[in-house]
Amino acid sequence: MFVRPSLTSIIRNTTQPIRAMSTIKAHSIVYNNYGEPLEQLKAHSYDINLDSLKPDDILVQTVACPINPSDINQIQGVYPSRPEISIDALPNLESPAAPTGNEGLFKVVATGSNVTGFEKGDWCIPAGVNFGTWTTHKVTKDKNLLKMPKTISKTQAATIAVNPSSAYQMLTQFVKLQPGDWFIQNGANSQVGRAAIQIGKKLGFKSLNIVRNRDNLDELVKELESLGATKVITEDDNESKDYGKVIKQLLNGQEIKLGLNCVGGPSATGLARKLGNDATMLTYGAMSMKPVSLPTGLFIFKNLTAKGFWITGNIKRHPETRLETINAVIKLMEDGDLVDAKYNETQINPNEVSNEEFLQSFLNAIQNSKKGKQLVVFE
Amino acid sequence: MFVRPSLTSIIRNTTQPIRAMSTIKAHSIVYNNYGEPLEQLKAHSYDINLDSLKPDDILVQTVACPINPSDINQIQGVYPSRPEISIDALPNLESPAAPTGNEGLFKVVATGSNVTGFEKGDWCIPAGVNFGTWTTHKVTKDKNLLKMPKTISKTQAATIAVNPSSAYQMLTQFVKLQPGDWFIQNGANSQVGRAAIQIGKKLGFKSLNIVRNRDNLDELVKELESLGATKVITEDDNESKDYGKVIKQLLNGQEIKLGLNCVGGPSATGLARKLGNDATMLTYGAMSMKPVSLPTGLFIFKNLTAKGFWITGNIKRHPETRLETINAVIKLMEDGDLVDAKYNETQINPNEVSNEEFLQSFLNAIQNSKKGKQLVVFE
Repeated sequence: MFVRPSLTSIIRNTTQPIRAMSTIKAHSIVYNNYGEPLEQLKAHSYDINLDSLKPDDILVQTVACPINPSDINQIQGVYPSRPEISIDALPNLESPAAPTGNEGLFKVVATGSNVTGFEKGDWCIPAGVNFGTWTTHKVTKDKNLLKMPKTISKTQAATIAVNPSSAYQMLTQFVKLQPGDWFIQNGANSQVGRAAIQIGKKLGFKSLNIVRNRDNLDELVKELESLGATKVITEDDNESKDYGKVIKQLLNGQEIKLGLNCVGGPSATGLARKLGNDATMLTYGAMSMKPVSLPTGLFIFKNLTAKGFWITGNIKRHPETRLETINAVIKLMEDGDLVDAKYNETQINPNEVSNEEFLQSFLNAIQNSKKGKQLVVFE
Repeated sequence: MFVRPSLTSIIRNTTQPIRAMSTIKAHSIVYNNYGEPLEQLKAHSYDINLDSLKPDDILVQTVACPINPSDINQIQGVYPSRPEISIDALPNLESPAAPTGNEGLFKVVATGSNVTGFEKGDWCIPAGVNFGTWTTHKVTKDKNLLKMPKTISKTQAATIAVNPSSAYQMLTQFVKLQPGDWFIQNGANSQVGRAAIQIGKKLGFKSLNIVRNRDNLDELVKELESLGATKVITEDDNESKDYGKVIKQLLNGQEIKLGLNCVGGPSATGLARKLGNDATMLTYGAMSMKPVSLPTGLFIFKNLTAKGFWITGNIKRHPETRLETINAVIKLMEDGDLVDAKYNETQINPNEVSNEEFLQSFLNAIQNSKKGKQLVVFE
């Protein structure tokens, strides 16, 4: 096994006083083997020598990164798009490891002599997947970054690539909805669901939104309506046959041409029953962990199309849509049509944190993910 | 309720000796209410006066008609495309009724003075649905008929519109398969399945065919292989996880891009698991009576598309493909690429049969449908 010479050890062998000025200690969350994050994750630290930046290099510092379900699934090894577990994944590794985290906002700390598109202080997000965003700093190439305007919030920029981009692509790339047309979705209070409500409203679409029953249902309904939801119903309504008449009256002769499913099981079946002729149901998640089950009559006599949606796969097939989507979502955010998503924030001081504290912050955030969306903020 | 004057009674009031020459007694199977065919079907007879043909009329006599599952479902009232139950459905009805049967071969007996496209003795099939093919004779317009060549067999012509046409459209209209590409299907020994094997072979496609296990499995496998099946496996194989390796070896790096499902339930799930990335599964039947159940991972990570296929709906959306399909299938039949489908034949003498005998022949054929495909032949 080839182990690259440690930058740290090289630097420690010098006696030049410049070290404190020109090196930055980077901390990154990594794993050596697939498994449960709480067992597998480690913090790895290494020094970045500012003077050693190559002409095309950019050194970035993380501003904020979310904990997404797909990050967890990557660590578990059950997600098809995964970073390689490699000795070259990060500097100074002692054994092959994979970087964690796919989404996040960065700010430029330093640029190599050839870099023209980015300046110190610029905001940027990863251009591709498997960037390893759960880190304090990273040296990368300019082609791996997309610049972000500072006209949107830190949270918006840090979480633009997955949830609102998914909602935008699902609403615009599969069925040609016209203003006044309906779409239906379950998991409507998820981040994708909330983005779909708002983007749909801006595009003139009416939304029929399914949420689980809960104690504070009225509050949630009001909140989603304030975002632009045309109608919010519960899963009990969705799965009830009697409720079909209420929906029919609501639609007033219109047919629902698009459904967004992130739940599966009976919820997806109920959603599909409300679709009209020639409709498309996109499945982008499986919160219930149950398969999508559709009666053959729906497929045949309604000419239903059931497709998967996965933003990583979709961008791989249609790379040109990545930037179009990001730009469209930025515009919606700038215009105030997409409010800040709600995240629980964990603060980290990227320049003072110890390896142990850094790891613990992420482990806490992962554990708290069950209670709500988590964002790790570096400041 | 308006009852049209009976042609029979008008004719009976005359004393002209020409009656025996110029009238034909037509028998048609009808129903007044939706329900089980054995309880609801009736035979209705009426006289057709040859001298009363209008200029655009064509009088046809049935040559052969199949009993299709969709005919049964129409009578049960559970099929979305249905003939109207109307007093005008046939001459001389005493109460509103619907004609039965959608597929069949006819020969022209007489033509009105304006008809130029058809001659006495020509073969033809209904141009549309709900023609009422379970009849001895019918007066219709030339636009309601498509001429058939006599270069194909009577059975082929009588059953061209549903099964081989469905197989042809499913193999050619949804996924652009290239010679050497694989498709997979369950219910492979159905008439659609057998047609798909042969059409697929002619188009250069390899087929992975799933059939139910049975005592004479070897015999069936040999038969389907003789039709051109590349590989035949059982439902036990299809639903077994271990068998996946055998399939992988068989495919030798190729991916299956198209699946045809007429079974549903675990069979459809097993079929979908064998599909490759970006594949499409068409569902055209539900022999198991179970819904199509697909894990979300297949949808998302394989970018699976699951669609319905219903030839009636497909032709309604793309009317131009009806004739193209029929002509392509005729060519395959003429070239010997599609062998005669196996039907159990019931003979009827259309000119000697009584109303009771006519009804009983169809009731027997319906009851025998469980044992095999039934064709009622008029000769």
